[in-house]
Amino acid sequence: QSSVTLFGIVDATLQIGRGSITDRMQLTHSGYNSSRLGFRGTEDLGGGMSASFWLEAGMENDNGQGQATNINNQVSGTGTAAAFTAGGGNGRQGLTFNRRSTVSLAGGWGEVRLGRDYSPQFWNLTTFDPFGTNGVGTTQTLVGSLGGPTNVRASNSIGYFLPGNLGGFYGQVQLYLGENAEDGGAAEDDGRGVGLRLGYAAGPLNVAFAIARTDFASAAAGATGVGTGEITTVNLGGQWDFGFAKLMAHYNRDTVDFLGGEVDSDGFLVGALVPVGAGEIRVSYSQTELDALAEPRTRKLALGYVHNLSKRTALYTTVARVRNNGGAAVALGGSTTAANTNSTGFDFGVRHSF
Amino acid sequence: QSSVTLFGIVDATLQIGRGSITDRMQLTHSGYNSSRLGFRGTEDLGGGMSASFWLEAGMENDNGQGQATNINNQVSGTGTAAAFTAGGGNGRQGLTFNRRSTVSLAGGWGEVRLGRDYSPQFWNLTTFDPFGTNGVGTTQTLVGSLGGPTNVRASNSIGYFLPGNLGGFYGQVQLYLGENAEDGGAAEDDGRGVGLRLGYAAGPLNVAFAIARTDFASAAAGATGVGTGEITTVNLGGQWDFGFAKLMAHYNRDTVDFLGGEVDSDGFLVGALVPVGAGEIRVSYSQTELDALAEPRTRKLALGYVHNLSKRTALYTTVARVRNNGGAAVALGGSTTAANTNSTGFDFGVRHSF
Amino acid sequence: QSSVTLFGIVDATLQIGRGSITDRMQLTHSGYNSSRLGFRGTEDLGGGMSASFWLEAGMENDNGQGQATNINNQVSGTGTAAAFTAGGGNGRQGLTFNRRSTVSLAGGWGEVRLGRDYSPQFWNLTTFDPFGTNGVGTTQTLVGSLGGPTNVRASNSIGYFLPGNLGGFYGQVQLYLGENAEDGGAAEDDGRGVGLRLGYAAGPLNVAFAIARTDFASAAAGATGVGTGEITTVNLGGQWDFGFAKLMAHYNRDTVDFLGGEVDSDGFLVGALVPVGAGEIRVSYSQTELDALAEPRTRKLALGYVHNLSKRTALYTTVARVRNNGGAAVALGGSTTAANTNSTGFDFGVRHSF
Repeated sequence: QSSVTLFGIVDATLQIGRGSITDRMQLTHSGYNSSRLGFRGTEDLGGGMSASFWLEAGMENDNGQGQATNINNQVSGTGTAAAFTAGGGNGRQGLTFNRRSTVSLAGGWGEVRLGRDYSPQFWNLTTFDPFGTNGVGTTQTLVGSLGGPTNVRASNSIGYFLPGNLGGFYGQVQLYLGENAEDGGAAEDDGRGVGLRLGYAAGPLNVAFAIARTDFASAAAGATGVGTGEITTVNLGGQWDFGFAKLMAHYNRDTVDFLGGEVDSDGFLVGALVPVGAGEIRVSYSQTELDALAEPRTRKLALGYVHNLSKRTALYTTVARVRNNGGAAVALGGSTTAANTNSTGFDFGVRHSF
Repeated sequence: QSSVTLFGIVDATLQIGRGSITDRMQLTHSGYNSSRLGFRGTEDLGGGMSASFWLEAGMENDNGQGQATNINNQVSGTGTAAAFTAGGGNGRQGLTFNRRSTVSLAGGWGEVRLGRDYSPQFWNLTTFDPFGTNGVGTTQTLVGSLGGPTNVRASNSIGYFLPGNLGGFYGQVQLYLGENAEDGGAAEDDGRGVGLRLGYAAGPLNVAFAIARTDFASAAAGATGVGTGEITTVNLGGQWDFGFAKLMAHYNRDTVDFLGGEVDSDGFLVGALVPVGAGEIRVSYSQTELDALAEPRTRKLALGYVHNLSKRTALYTTVARVRNNGGAAVALGGSTTAANTNSTGFDFGVRHSF
Repeated sequence: QSSVTLFGIVDATLQIGRGSITDRMQLTHSGYNSSRLGFRGTEDLGGGMSASFWLEAGMENDNGQGQATNINNQVSGTGTAAAFTAGGGNGRQGLTFNRRSTVSLAGGWGEVRLGRDYSPQFWNLTTFDPFGTNGVGTTQTLVGSLGGPTNVRASNSIGYFLPGNLGGFYGQVQLYLGENAEDGGAAEDDGRGVGLRLGYAAGPLNVAFAIARTDFASAAAGATGVGTGEITTVNLGGQWDFGFAKLMAHYNRDTVDFLGGEVDSDGFLVGALVPVGAGEIRVSYSQTELDALAEPRTRKLALGYVHNLSKRTALYTTVARVRNNGGAAVALGGSTTAANTNSTGFDFGVRHSF
């Protein structure tokens, strides 16, 4: 047997959501870190070269289900929950390596990585979010994203990463394929895209910029005000570690270029992580606004605390509140709320990694 | 890599069923112990505290499929086999951690366990069944149960277990959530329940009592004589180890409180495990009777033998026969039988654990 | 923890297909070796006996999905992709142990193996194919097979393997069950079959013969010219290792005995593996012809090269071209092509095993 590392996280969350229409209480998962089970390993090929693999499955440890992936970077690439349910799918979702499924070759020149991986345009939203895009505190810039099926990860991707010895500069570029038949039709390039991220980290500073474009055939906007078409995402984030606190911020803009128009979703976050003894206070303000219809806007304030029992095990709690305007109706914790009303979400949980 | 234990059981069974309508022969699984693949581990947190996780997937090693779980402790929480098949699901069921998926914190005060786990009301049926609720010999008290989706396991659960140093007393309490939207409707609490089990084990004696209640909206009984509504399960079991034989018995009563009535299912088992050399003879008589319609009753006699080739590997065989009355039509081993007729099932297999 | 071996292959392939109707470009998987994740182990029982298990899941590492299995050795045993898609299944296929899922007892007398395993009739096609039935070079004798759901693997199987000390002779016999209800209907034996393979390997020589028969109820042929009915497969293969090259060839004939007729598919392959430094050149010519309708025939020429970076990691490329006659329309690499036209496929990838 070659050396394979088996790793994972089991994070269970008691979550309560309150909205103007319905409330909900759940024992759910991933309130602090995403629950997962993974297998990875690296082989030294000599001459500074190495080969490696990484297979990581998301899981819902509250009920034992796995999570679906997306096979073609298009909406059709993941069966909708509703359709799967109609087909009897409740409770039947098996483990897939939806979080990451890659094989890599690396050397002094960098790394080439093939398979399903995070998209470059996602990293600034999660790295520079005190809540790491998990739980009720997740930055509203992600919740309100127009980034489409590849706003977090892309399948069928070919990635290149800069090597680690560039004096603090880092970067990656990723091509991903929609794999449609090349039949000359308008949708033949759907799901195909390219993303780029460049950053610089040194001492207390970390800043990065990303841009991505994904092809989709144009279709007119309906009642939602957002049509289908080429998606462009641009974002920028950074943090400064003052020691007593790590301040972070990011800005994100998604643009959809649809038939007969263009619409943007603009959002930003400011937040901080404040170490206190064996724990950490987390706080953020984030918002997203759509420049369509009555310009729906959602603003979120989140406050949390993580208490580390060890490096691997932590207790945590988060409370978040959203305020909706312009017709927005975002609700937290599985609740539902009427347009232009508020909603509150609450997480309390335990995260154990292995 | 932290220390993860990878464990499992592969149990293959040649099973034959004979009934008055159709017979069947299968190479199936889990005739002696349930086939599974799991990952578990424990971290010492110091001060007598520990954190641990347990992820255990059922599997059908005769064909390689996984098994579905239930996401909300309601009938809708697991896609029916029929609906999944209509949706093309045959052969497509992936691995889920349907058997157990938990994270725990433990100390001198006991253990808190979160996730999907056995329900307290299940333990007396399986612990005090010589066939451990596997194969054609499975106690009829489980087969004829009215316990609903949580009669074996519950998702979204918060459990507490007494510590192990109480002079032989043991116990657990479990709360589980249905996670429905709180919309004021009759079904908003469906799938929510609580179970309790208390026992005492010392020397040759082991006895335990359990009670559980699960909420469901009331609906009238149809042709089955059993409507939908709050389910209450009460059971009691025990064993005495005489050395030359371990005698065991249990009693179980499920009550459904539906619209316009109430119905009980009453059942009991008496049985024994008799060690003989490297093996063990297993024998049981179990029955269940429903107090509705013509009071359908099914009585089962089961006889088996397990031959241990090692601690991990065993050959086994079981023969069981059911006798149906009052309109019951329970059949064994995948056969079908007419109301009030008999059916016979036969298992022969090998169990290998790792 | 007992000793479990965790093993696998992650093989990522950039694949291009060109046909007369549509082309396609994909980042796919398994162009050289089938991607997989597995768990296996062996227990010494003493006296020359051992018990072992093998659980091996196929996976699509380009997108993280698992692969479906077949539960009953019939067409209905695997949900069709179309039906699963209609049910919302895209991206939802979890891991199953579709490649192999067995438990074995072995001794000086051979091995008994239970579960899902390769069928005996498959081995000659893959062992004596320079491309090992992977990627665009896959022997046309497999692509054009009429062998039905068990032409590669069978579920619910009971296999026996000769021991390894028979002076070069090897062999296996496998029974597999369809597990249908025995209701006296025409289809009650569907999916039940038996296969046999016998071979001899010594020095540079390896030859083997296989025959298998699978039951299916008879139905008349429609527009395809091939009805449903009992399937018989006979094949024969061999190789001679000259040192500078390993020459291999095989012949395969599938016969379907349907209502009102019988149809054969005849095919053969000749090929070679030529070691060159750290790599290997692979070349083959294969063809299959159906003796129905206008006798559709497809001929394939494939040429490839594998470059080993280590024992575990290799780069590879293959180009293959098919020529269709008699109405055949086989296309490569996800392309589509009109009847009687050509199609070209191209693989370039990396295979990493662990």
